[in-house]
Amino acid sequence: MRGRPKEFDEREVLERAMHLFWLRGYEGVSLVELLRHMEISRQSLYDTFGNKRALFIRAIAHYRDTQLVAALALLERDGSALENVKDVVRFFQELAMDSRCRGCLVANALVELGPHDAEIAALLREILDLLQGSIERTLLRAQAQGELDASRSPGELSRALTNAAMGMAVTGKLPLAESTLRDICAGTLGMLR
Amino acid sequence: MRGRPKEFDEREVLERAMHLFWLRGYEGVSLVELLRHMEISRQSLYDTFGNKRALFIRAIAHYRDTQLVAALALLERDGSALENVKDVVRFFQELAMDSRCRGCLVANALVELGPHDAEIAALLREILDLLQGSIERTLLRAQAQGELDASRSPGELSRALTNAAMGMAVTGKLPLAESTLRDICAGTLGMLR
Repeated sequence: MRGRPKEFDEREVLERAMHLFWLRGYEGVSLVELLRHMEISRQSLYDTFGNKRALFIRAIAHYRDTQLVAALALLERDGSALENVKDVVRFFQELAMDSRCRGCLVANALVELGPHDAEIAALLREILDLLQGSIERTLLRAQAQGELDASRSPGELSRALTNAAMGMAVTGKLPLAESTLRDICAGTLGMLR
Repeated sequence: MRGRPKEFDEREVLERAMHLFWLRGYEGVSLVELLRHMEISRQSLYDTFGNKRALFIRAIAHYRDTQLVAALALLERDGSALENVKDVVRFFQELAMDSRCRGCLVANALVELGPHDAEIAALLREILDLLQGSIERTLLRAQAQGELDASRSPGELSRALTNAAMGMAVTGKLPLAESTLRDICAGTLGMLR
């Protein structure tokens, strides 16, 4: 920062970078496009975020702190724990219905960079683990409330539901009919019968 | 071909191209790497396949004709239709366990190019529809055999299972413990109870 005051809102420019990466991937976005979209200078980007890869990591963390946090908040509501889990599946259905077919930044980054970048893979795994762990705890609560049979495994179901959410992120890359995504959601919720 | 006999087995070089795209994506592979891996000359590639994008489309079609066809063959076996469906889910679990974390070429291509290339998106949708349609028919057979409750919707379940297969393709981009993938598979099969 070299002691100068920043002339932009860091969170706001990070939000813009996140949306561009989400839509177009990591390699699909040039530094020039990022700068234009973030409305900051090259020097400001380097001073504040480091390089493009470091900015991408910050954008994924910002995605965790906004999108993932919204999903976790659904799970933590009072009331029916089972309905909370169903609502989180519907949350991913909504994501897949987005007409821009941008899917999910976590799934996109996993496919594009997961096998080739250990640091990014670790961050993505942390995000998936947060979601899975929160679903598992909510399913345990559903069992305690008598909404889910005690014989079912919250560990297995939470992993399968997190996997289904990643599936919707990929499937949503096609401009599918809403009825198809509703079918996917309904079939997936069949796990919780 | 300009009348000259080909000096290579088209199917074999296509197989090699498919494996390289599967492992590294479309943009992640340069033409020079493709030529080295396929062991053909630039002129041969242009004469036989056209350009890199046309080769990629042929590689996806080859994936359909080998990998997808193997999954469909599982569904078409005699015996328990429900077990056939379960075996196809396990087939995708195996794919996700591959230590190279290459996932599935269809899911990879969907994420990388789906929203940006209508011709490739149409081919990928065709492949997903083939899988979903075949699972649906097999579930109808399972209902006729009394293995699956008549109240369940083969349309919903087959779409949810195809979606779960795409999820495994993404999840498999992380080097997961085998037990995690077994949990995902077991939870997913919970749809068919």
